[in-house]
Amino acid sequence: MAFEDIALPDVSGLTVGILGGTGEQGRGLAYRLARAGQQVTIGSRVNEKATAVATDLSALPHVPPGSINAGRNEDAAEQDVVIVAVPWAGHADLLTSLATHLSGRIVVDCVNPLGFDKQGPFALRVEEGSAAQQAAALLPDSRVTAAFHHVSAVLLADPTIEEMDIDILVLGDDREAAATVQALAGRIAGMRGVFGGRLRNAGQVEALTANLIAINRRYKTHAGVRVSGL
Amino acid sequence: MAFEDIALPDVSGLTVGILGGTGEQGRGLAYRLARAGQQVTIGSRVNEKATAVATDLSALPHVPPGSINAGRNEDAAEQDVVIVAVPWAGHADLLTSLATHLSGRIVVDCVNPLGFDKQGPFALRVEEGSAAQQAAALLPDSRVTAAFHHVSAVLLADPTIEEMDIDILVLGDDREAAATVQALAGRIAGMRGVFGGRLRNAGQVEALTANLIAINRRYKTHAGVRVSGL
Repeated sequence: MAFEDIALPDVSGLTVGILGGTGEQGRGLAYRLARAGQQVTIGSRVNEKATAVATDLSALPHVPPGSINAGRNEDAAEQDVVIVAVPWAGHADLLTSLATHLSGRIVVDCVNPLGFDKQGPFALRVEEGSAAQQAAALLPDSRVTAAFHHVSAVLLADPTIEEMDIDILVLGDDREAAATVQALAGRIAGMRGVFGGRLRNAGQVEALTANLIAINRRYKTHAGVRVSGL
Repeated sequence: MAFEDIALPDVSGLTVGILGGTGEQGRGLAYRLARAGQQVTIGSRVNEKATAVATDLSALPHVPPGSINAGRNEDAAEQDVVIVAVPWAGHADLLTSLATHLSGRIVVDCVNPLGFDKQGPFALRVEEGSAAQQAAALLPDSRVTAAFHHVSAVLLADPTIEEMDIDILVLGDDREAAATVQALAGRIAGMRGVFGGRLRNAGQVEALTANLIAINRRYKTHAGVRVSGL
C-alpha cells in the first residue's frame, strides 16, 4: 500500500484542545489547525492568558472567525483530540491532574524531554522510556499517541508561510487513534501524517529534536524531517 | 550560513575501508562509494568472502575498474576513512581487536543497536549511550563519527537507481572529521551529508532506524530521511 492509498478518517469535525496552548509550540499548532478548519480550544492554567492568546491568533490571516476558543487546561482536555504541548518539567503533574478529563480522549503527546548545557541540547533519560510512554502510564483510560515533535514553532506561527515542509511521525499502539492524528496532521497544508511505529519507539523521535536543534544552529535554519520513499 | 555555502573538504582522493563489507549495508555503501569515484577496500574476517563480494560489486554498472579491493578487516581498517558496518552483536569485540589499526583514522560508525520481537523492531539500551559512543570509548586514538544509519541496503545496491533520495546525518565531536564524512556522503549522487550534532546525540539517530523499519512495514517501501529547511 502506497502512502496515498491508505485511507484515513475524516477528522474535519473533530475539536482539538491544546494543553499548554499559550506556549510557542502550542500557539503555532493552534494557528495552523484553525487555519486548516479545525475548532481549537487553547488551554492554560491561567484563563486570562488563554484568552489573550486566542484573541491574538484569531486576528491572524486565514483563521476562520470563531474557530479559536480559550479556556482552562480542563476545558482543553475535554475536546475530541487533546495535544499536550507543555514543558517536560510539568508533564507528569499536569497529566496526573487531568486524567479524569482526558479519559476516553485521543491524547497527542508532543513533548521533547531535552536538557541544555554549554555544548547544546541533549536527550534526557526518561524512566518510562519517553514522554509519550509516561503519558500512557499516567493515562490508562486515554488513547495516547505521540506526534508533532519536530515542528518549528517559528514556521508554524508565520502566516506568510502557506505550506509547511515537514512530515509528522505519528506513533501509537492504538492504530485507530494514530490514524486520526495522521489525518489531523494531514489537514495542515504541506504536512503529511506518517505512521512511525509503536509508543515504545517514541523516545528516539522525541530525542531527535536535539539533532534538529544542532542542525538549526549549524545552518541557521528551522529544520524539519521529511520521509523519503513515500 | 546556508547548507550549500559551508565549504567541505575535497575527499576524492581518500581511500575508504568497510569493516563488515560483505554484509548488506557494507556492500551497498561500497558499491555507491566506488560508483562515486572512491577507492574502496571491502573488509571481512574471511578473505575469500571479501574477494567474492569485491568481484561481484566490480561487475556492477558504473563501477570504475579496479576501484574495489578485498582484504581482511585489518586491511580495511588501515584506509583513510573506515566505515563500521558490522552487526551490533560483534561491534565491541571487533573494534577492540582493531584499535591499533584504527589509530588516527576517521571511523564512521553506522551500526544500529536494535532488537526484534513479535511487535517488530525496538531500540536496545546501550551502556555507553549509543554504538558510536561505544566506538569512541574503545578507540580513544581514532576520530570517531557516526553516519549512514538510515540508508536502505536494497536501494544502495540497486544499480538502476541513479540518485539516492536521502540525507545522511553525520555526528561527531571532531568537526573536521565530521566535515570529511559529510563530504564523502555528498559524493554519492542524491545524498547530502548534514551535520547532525555531537556523538552524545547519536543514540536517537541509531534508534530512529526502528521507526523507519516500522514505516517500511506499514507502507511497503524503503523509507529514508530528508532534512527540510536546508
